[in-house]
Amino acid sequence: MAQQRKIVLQESDIPTHWYNIVADMPNKPLPPLHPGTKQPVGPADLAPLFPMELIKQEVTTNKWVEIPDEVRNLYSIWRPTPMFRAYGLEKALGTRSKIYYKYEGVSPAGSHKPNTAIPQAYYNAKEGIKKICTETGAGQWGSALSFACKLFDIECEVFMVKVSYEGKPYRKIMMNTWGATVHPSPSNLTNAGRSILAKDPNSPGSLGIAISEAVEVAATHDDTKYSLGSVLNHVLMHQTVIGLEALKQMEKAGDYPDIVIAPFGGGSNFAGIAFPFLQNNLTGGKKVRAIAVEPTSCPKLTRGVFRYDFGDTVGMTPLIPMYTLGHNFIPSPIHAGGLRYHGAGAIVSQLLKDGLIEADAINQTECFEAGILFSGAEGIIPAPEATHGIAEVIRQTKQADAEGVSKTILFNLCGHGNFDLGSYEQYLSGKLVDYEVSQEDINSSLAELTTPTI
Amino acid sequence: MAQQRKIVLQESDIPTHWYNIVADMPNKPLPPLHPGTKQPVGPADLAPLFPMELIKQEVTTNKWVEIPDEVRNLYSIWRPTPMFRAYGLEKALGTRSKIYYKYEGVSPAGSHKPNTAIPQAYYNAKEGIKKICTETGAGQWGSALSFACKLFDIECEVFMVKVSYEGKPYRKIMMNTWGATVHPSPSNLTNAGRSILAKDPNSPGSLGIAISEAVEVAATHDDTKYSLGSVLNHVLMHQTVIGLEALKQMEKAGDYPDIVIAPFGGGSNFAGIAFPFLQNNLTGGKKVRAIAVEPTSCPKLTRGVFRYDFGDTVGMTPLIPMYTLGHNFIPSPIHAGGLRYHGAGAIVSQLLKDGLIEADAINQTECFEAGILFSGAEGIIPAPEATHGIAEVIRQTKQADAEGVSKTILFNLCGHGNFDLGSYEQYLSGKLVDYEVSQEDINSSLAELTTPTI
Repeated sequence: MAQQRKIVLQESDIPTHWYNIVADMPNKPLPPLHPGTKQPVGPADLAPLFPMELIKQEVTTNKWVEIPDEVRNLYSIWRPTPMFRAYGLEKALGTRSKIYYKYEGVSPAGSHKPNTAIPQAYYNAKEGIKKICTETGAGQWGSALSFACKLFDIECEVFMVKVSYEGKPYRKIMMNTWGATVHPSPSNLTNAGRSILAKDPNSPGSLGIAISEAVEVAATHDDTKYSLGSVLNHVLMHQTVIGLEALKQMEKAGDYPDIVIAPFGGGSNFAGIAFPFLQNNLTGGKKVRAIAVEPTSCPKLTRGVFRYDFGDTVGMTPLIPMYTLGHNFIPSPIHAGGLRYHGAGAIVSQLLKDGLIEADAINQTECFEAGILFSGAEGIIPAPEATHGIAEVIRQTKQADAEGVSKTILFNLCGHGNFDLGSYEQYLSGKLVDYEVSQEDINSSLAELTTPTI
Repeated sequence: MAQQRKIVLQESDIPTHWYNIVADMPNKPLPPLHPGTKQPVGPADLAPLFPMELIKQEVTTNKWVEIPDEVRNLYSIWRPTPMFRAYGLEKALGTRSKIYYKYEGVSPAGSHKPNTAIPQAYYNAKEGIKKICTETGAGQWGSALSFACKLFDIECEVFMVKVSYEGKPYRKIMMNTWGATVHPSPSNLTNAGRSILAKDPNSPGSLGIAISEAVEVAATHDDTKYSLGSVLNHVLMHQTVIGLEALKQMEKAGDYPDIVIAPFGGGSNFAGIAFPFLQNNLTGGKKVRAIAVEPTSCPKLTRGVFRYDFGDTVGMTPLIPMYTLGHNFIPSPIHAGGLRYHGAGAIVSQLLKDGLIEADAINQTECFEAGILFSGAEGIIPAPEATHGIAEVIRQTKQADAEGVSKTILFNLCGHGNFDLGSYEQYLSGKLVDYEVSQEDINSSLAELTTPTI
């Protein structure tokens, strides 16, 4: 075959260490603050929620953190993931640019989320934790954690936003199949849930409420911890296995990207593919442009402000230095549920503040159009979140072609769309709509903030 | 890592030729017969339905058939597929046997079916065909052909059994996303469909009716051909890429199977993994036992007869020399829709007749139990069809352990269960039932046959 489409690594190529970009950042991320005292939180504040090893990883400034053998062994269920040269997409676009993508949808849960679910379950198991509690919106994170907990024989309890619980039953059954208990949230099982139901017995739920329920269960049970699928430093670090593999694969392909692109929800997907390349940027090596892509309906990176804010809607978590739309901002019901988050992780926010990464915002119809084009050209039907990366790739190739230049572009295809086909049907039947966010909406959400400015 | 879980091949390891087991069979399969004349069918009889190159492949006795570069190039979207040493399953079973599995669920359509959909679309495109028509039950085959047709810019029309069309909407949308048109069958678009609807406007449809509709459309339109996803010789041959890769992977693992296992519907999955190993059996090399696993509710291999029968229920196709329960046999509504077929392909039937392969039948509750165990031990949630192979693996390990011996067992994990989670919910909630087939039912179905005996 003249063209090599897929760049494959061996099991021995699974990275031995996660990359911690904090070590190379010119300005370190500011510390999270205790919501009561407004002082930096210490390990003791986090101990009720997380095992000590993850707390250490959250604050470490070591550049490399060793991946335990048992984690690498379980990574090998689906890692290394393939990297593809997107010949089909290049042809469909008629571009002179070269496009590569890393494909994380080969994991059993169908996305990149198990990259952090496995080590999180591992460290919990190692510290004798019997149960982990979490929330999930559309179900990607809940599936990943259920899968990981099953492998470590840890009980897993998931609070799933009620509207998704009812609308995406297959995601719920997937978690059940891996042995997890799934509750529609708000539930009668927690004070948080009961207080919501008392006000509105028909509440459809929200990620913020589900977080409150999961945190409450973990905080009030000695043998139960809490787990988060994005935003936090250790979560982003776990995801760097994606980019570390991609570096090797780029080397095998004899190429190096000019631009690295990923969708952006809380930051873990973007961090996973981009940070290992940014390492070269930050240490005097080859330079890439790293572009985070958010939905226009939830534009914290492109239209938010940089200040301290809560990680959840209800306001139970530490205050995080982040680009935010305000923790009361309620994103429109776009199909990319994984991108409907009001804020951004501390590391990514600092990098954006310092001009070391870029951000763009795209409407969902443009994204689904890109997803349809991609599925016909490359075969894989992407998750709605992943289509944001593809749409940005198309924007970049068009710009390069207009300028008469060729760019080498790498993006992270973070998951398949097998559980999201209802949204494709909406697009195909012409029923998909875009949502505009007015500046008044953003201003009014931000005006409610009483959290510290930076 | 002490244990290597995954045996990975490079894109250059994708086979260059398909293996045609007919060349090595001591007794060649008997020819298919024209349903009217009862004489062997010739190429001219098949020309309205298939492109000439596939007709040639259907009858060739050449041992190796070259895979066109364009097909290998598209295979590389998901091939080579990984082979796993099932350490997790071995541990869960506490067996002394070694278990390997080849995983075909990594294809964009989620099963092994694209292995033949791609070359079928390729040869049709090469002969200028603009449209392919097919039927699908649960949707695996229809998805695979939609995917393949999209890549070759061929129009694809799928008649989907109405009860599945209504019950598995995501499979339908998947086909739409790849540009295919999907009709619930019976439809008003064909004489066959209209005649069924005239008798029963609420007919839930059947695979037999859907085949009739697809064949009718192909037979009555010059630019349209028909395509089948199993049973036929060329389809089985295309699937041998699975076993040819597995041979290389076994060699890399420094091992060789004692037993090769696959689920059995029409034969393509089983042929795909087993034939390349049987080549050694048939040519004086190392010996494997090859076991085809069918559902007890559709037991053509273990309780059927070997005689000529129609490939479809309505009786429009050539007569095939097969193990059959009679073309009027209606299998119970088990969840493994891909195994609900009354007959077996000619090659596999001849091999079974000659004692060169074995068959076993398993109830679906035993299969789902195996699927749940597997998903917890290995991470992947298998398709209901695939669970039949896993259940047989468990049976074989138990027998070996009881005998105090260790066996090396390879099975084909033909697809993931992302679209079949409704059946897992039935199992988990205790609602899954088994179906017994009485000897009277089989006898009465066979008694209706007027087709030639052998």
